[in-house]
Parts: sequence; structure tokens; C-alpha cells
Amino acid sequence: MAANNRQVILAEKPQGKLTLANFQFAETEMPVPAEGEVLVKALYVSLDAANRAWMQGVTYRSALETGAVMAGGSLAEVVESRAEHLAPGDLVFAETGWQAYAAVPGKHLAKLPRVEPLTHLLSVYGVTGLTAYFGLLNVGQPKPGETVVVSAAAGAVGSLVGQIARIKGCRVIGIAGGAAKCGWIKDELGFDEAVDYKAGDVRRQLRGLCPNGVDVYFDNVGGDVFEAALFNMANHGRIVCCGAVSQYDDVPPAHGPRGVPGLIVTKRLRVEGFVVMDFYAGRDAALAELRGWVEAGKLKVQEDVIDGLENLPAALIGLLAGENRGKRMVRVG
Amino acid sequence: MAANNRQVILAEKPQGKLTLANFQFAETEMPVPAEGEVLVKALYVSLDAANRAWMQGVTYRSALETGAVMAGGSLAEVVESRAEHLAPGDLVFAETGWQAYAAVPGKHLAKLPRVEPLTHLLSVYGVTGLTAYFGLLNVGQPKPGETVVVSAAAGAVGSLVGQIARIKGCRVIGIAGGAAKCGWIKDELGFDEAVDYKAGDVRRQLRGLCPNGVDVYFDNVGGDVFEAALFNMANHGRIVCCGAVSQYDDVPPAHGPRGVPGLIVTKRLRVEGFVVMDFYAGRDAALAELRGWVEAGKLKVQEDVIDGLENLPAALIGLLAGENRGKRMVRVG
Repeated sequence: MAANNRQVILAEKPQGKLTLANFQFAETEMPVPAEGEVLVKALYVSLDAANRAWMQGVTYRSALETGAVMAGGSLAEVVESRAEHLAPGDLVFAETGWQAYAAVPGKHLAKLPRVEPLTHLLSVYGVTGLTAYFGLLNVGQPKPGETVVVSAAAGAVGSLVGQIARIKGCRVIGIAGGAAKCGWIKDELGFDEAVDYKAGDVRRQLRGLCPNGVDVYFDNVGGDVFEAALFNMANHGRIVCCGAVSQYDDVPPAHGPRGVPGLIVTKRLRVEGFVVMDFYAGRDAALAELRGWVEAGKLKVQEDVIDGLENLPAALIGLLAGENRGKRMVRVG
Repeated sequence: MAANNRQVILAEKPQGKLTLANFQFAETEMPVPAEGEVLVKALYVSLDAANRAWMQGVTYRSALETGAVMAGGSLAEVVESRAEHLAPGDLVFAETGWQAYAAVPGKHLAKLPRVEPLTHLLSVYGVTGLTAYFGLLNVGQPKPGETVVVSAAAGAVGSLVGQIARIKGCRVIGIAGGAAKCGWIKDELGFDEAVDYKAGDVRRQLRGLCPNGVDVYFDNVGGDVFEAALFNMANHGRIVCCGAVSQYDDVPPAHGPRGVPGLIVTKRLRVEGFVVMDFYAGRDAALAELRGWVEAGKLKVQEDVIDGLENLPAALIGLLAGENRGKRMVRVG
């Protein structure tokens, strides 16, 4: 193949907030798959707060290296296969990094169904949907009638968490930034209440809305909002630790939330982290249930698709600033 | 009865550290039991860090009131009974407060067996022993071969937790203050290793002793030691939140441990608080197992008995400063 490959390089790790200057663009030769590998073409690159966390150091994967292609996953199409179970035209989710083409090991790739729209494979039927599903149901274990609070409620995971909690018979309160997002999660997604963290003290707002306390708090943000929820938990409440986006895009915080571990003792709380891969044994059943809800119109899927590989750095910076609604991705192909 | 009752009054809630000036002594008339109540004579008053926590405000019980008898529980003997199931001479554990005699509702009192020594009813066969047992086994769920770390390891609960973990086939590291306590938990109680928090950075010491991480951390102290353990947890580790003694005897801390909730996510930790009463359905089986270990010489019970009701304030202040080894109590009778 004569065409070149376009790449986004992590030129320099951010010291404080991520900026465009941390990235560079490159053109290289088209990669050639080795035995067992497949050459894939990225269709949509997934954008996640985790992209930024990886720059902080070792998380559940290795830290990123400067000078290398920026790490990330994509919905991709097989162009050339040297792996037995995959053929050109197959759709896969692959760790391509931020580039138009990648040669990746075929071993861990599974052929995905061609659903309509394809983008749902990155949102509700992808890591995002499964994170919301397993985090809320398997870790949080909400019971009908309980009060569930979710932060980053207008985001990719949060918008699904709140709707799934409603489907399961819970009262749902979303925390989001700004009146527009707060109105949207109530009016369009059916949340019972919304807390605008930009409009005043979250701890006091939650106290007013949850006089009997919060049974499940699904945390996507960490920091002050985590602390506000912690102080409002009911006895035997559960905090699902999914991410800490408020902590990623800056120097590591100098301190953690007050009330740890004191309130965890006196309220008998369970505070639990998870990584979605730990629950993949139950993936097929989860996807079937998610699909049923989507097809019945009970679960609305919001996507935020930006065009062009060259817009990846700005798309991530914007995501960290909370400008997206629902699942953000960049169309490359 | 002509004799007077001696009491310790909480004269003033502490603003910073607890001092003798926060207490007063009083003599009042002997209480008279109403219908359904029993008059009990306190034999041994239990001293616990929780006594101090109650002064901070609402925990799992109401906050203390100034001018009232200081709250606390005792091993007590029934003197006069107006409750059907109890008779003079019966032993009970009762919320007497810090006084020689109390009239208390009989309803929730259970007659205790006369074991030898009686003090074991306040230590290994009391709330202390059950807290260690249920907290470690039901909440922490250690598996043989795992590494268990416990703080306040020379204290009432910690000294039992470490020994029970050893009995269950775990490698056990205790955190305690000073070379004497550290030597004692290793040489007398059989802990594998000890970390002296007064002798240097706990986080670094733990890292050296636990290169593969900590599977279960039983936290009695909160604060910096909690943070040090958190940074050393292994993936899928569990933190048992039993108390936060480092946080009780002062103004409430201005911040919490770093790494919350970030490390809880990336290491998939479970951080869980409990109150021993929640597990009382399994109390008889737990007591039987504890008794088996004590009688077989596998579980050593350390007690720290101080004489005289008038020494209660100093005994609590000393406990908060970490001067006790094992279960501290004050003999009143």
C-alpha cells in the first residue's frame, strides 16, 4: 500500500492541564501486520477520561510514553488479516492508538456485529455501556425504591447509569454542570432530580433532595463531589468508584476527601472500585439486556461524534472540561 | 439503700484534645429500677476509642450531652431485678455509663456465663473479640497465604485481628507505636512482621515488607496510616474500616487521605465499614470458635485493668495516647 498513515503523537506529558501543545501530528508508512496480527482501519476513536489518567502514571495499564502514538481504543475495520478468525471487513474494538491504521495482535479481538448505528458499538454496546451496567448493578446493587446519585450525569457513563437505575425502580438524582445539562437529564433522560454543581454547594443541595440519605452513589469524578456525596450517604450505602475525572487533568491533588474513613465506619458504607473487564464473563447477558432496553425505547443513547483525526487532541481536552453530552468519539475513516 | 452512687460526668465537650478538665465527679442517690428495669452494679467499665468519638457528634449512636453521666458500657452484676428473665447475681453487659450503679432497661440484656477470668467477657468474648472476628473474617475475607496488615496492632482489637489472621493461614504485619510494642506483637503474639510508625515512613516500610502488596488492611486509626496502607494495597485488596482513632482526639481533620477514590478504582479495592452489632446473628458460632482458640492456647488475650472509678478519665486519655496494650478496662466494684 502506498498511502501513508496519519498519527497523533504524545509529544510531552502534561505537567498541569492538558493542552494542544502536548500533542504532535505525524505521517508514517502504512504498518504491515506480522503473523497473527491484523491491519485495521480506525473508524471511530473512543474518547474517555481514562486517556488522561494514563498520562498520570501506572493505572490498570502501563503509563504512556512520550514520543509514541497516543493510546486509545477504536471501533475499527479489518483491512488485512493474518489471524485465522478474522477477515477483511470484520468490525473489531482494538487498541489502535490515535492513528488511522494500526497493526494489532488478532488474539484478543472479537468480531462485532454490524449494528445500526455502528457508533453504538462504542457507546451503549461498548465499554461505556458495560461500565454503567456492571458498575451500577453488580457493584452498587441498588434495590427498587432506593435513592441513586450519579456524578458526571450528562456524560457517557453517567447518562446510562441514571437511566438504568430508573429502569430498576430507583429514585435517581444526577449531578452535572450547568442548567442546560441538568435540564436535559431530567427532561430527556427521565432523572428525578438534578444537582448543578456550578450553582452552589453540592453537599447542601444533596441534603435537601435526599433527607433520608443516598443509598448508592456512582462516582465518576472524585474530589469535592465525592466528599459531598459521602457526607450524605445513608447507613449501609454503597459508593461505586468508577473514575475520578476531577483528579486527572492537573497535578495530583494534595489531599483526599474528608470523612474517610470515619464516615465509612459509622455509616457502614461499602466503597468499591472496579474495572469493567473483571465482569466480562457476564458480558453477553448484559449486552442482551441493554439491547432490549434500547429497542424498547427505555434507554436513550446520546452520542457526541466529532469529525477528523486532527481534532482528537481538542476533543479530549474538551471532554476533560465537561463540554460533551453523552459518549464522545472522533470519526477517523 | 442508703449508699450513694458515684458518677463521672462529662462536664464539657473537648474542643481539642481530651483532658481531665472535661470531667467532673458527682455523688447522687442510688437509682431505683422502674418496672422492666434492673439495677446493676458495674464491675468493669470498658474503655474504647469510641468513647471519644461519641463526643464528636452523631456516630452510630446519639452524641453525648454535657452535664450527663459519661457514656460507656460495663460488665455488670444484677443487684435488683424488675425484669422477668434476670435475677440478682446475674452477669450482663450493659450501657451503664461511667458510674458505680445504674438502672437500665432489662429488655436487651442477656445473661452472660461466668467465665474465668471474668474480664474475658469484656475482651475476647465481648464486643472487642467479636469486632476483631467479624471485621477480619466477614468483612475482610482473607484467604490463606494472603498478606494482612493491621494498625493499632498492640491494641485490644488489633492484637486479636493479627492472631486470628495467623490462625487462618495469613502472613501478618502489625503497625504499632514504639519498639516495645513492635517486639511484643512479634515475639509474644506471633505476628510475622511489625512496622513502628514512630520510627519512620509507614508507606515506605510497608512497601519493603509487602513487595506484592497488601491483600487485607484492617484499619483502626485512619489518617496518615490509612493513606500509607492504601498506597500499598494489592489489586482486589480489601480495607476493613473499624475505627479512626487518629481522628477522634482533636478537631476534625481538614482533609482526608490522598488516593481516594483514584487508587480504589485502579486497584479495584473494596473499602468497607462495619459495626459489630450488624453481625450478631452469628455471635454464638463466633464465640465458640474464639473460645476454642483461647483454650487451645492459639489466641493470647492481653488485658490492661486499671483500678478505681476515679481513674476512668485518665484511663481514656491514656488509651487515646496509645499507652495501653490489649484491652483496657477499669475495675469499679
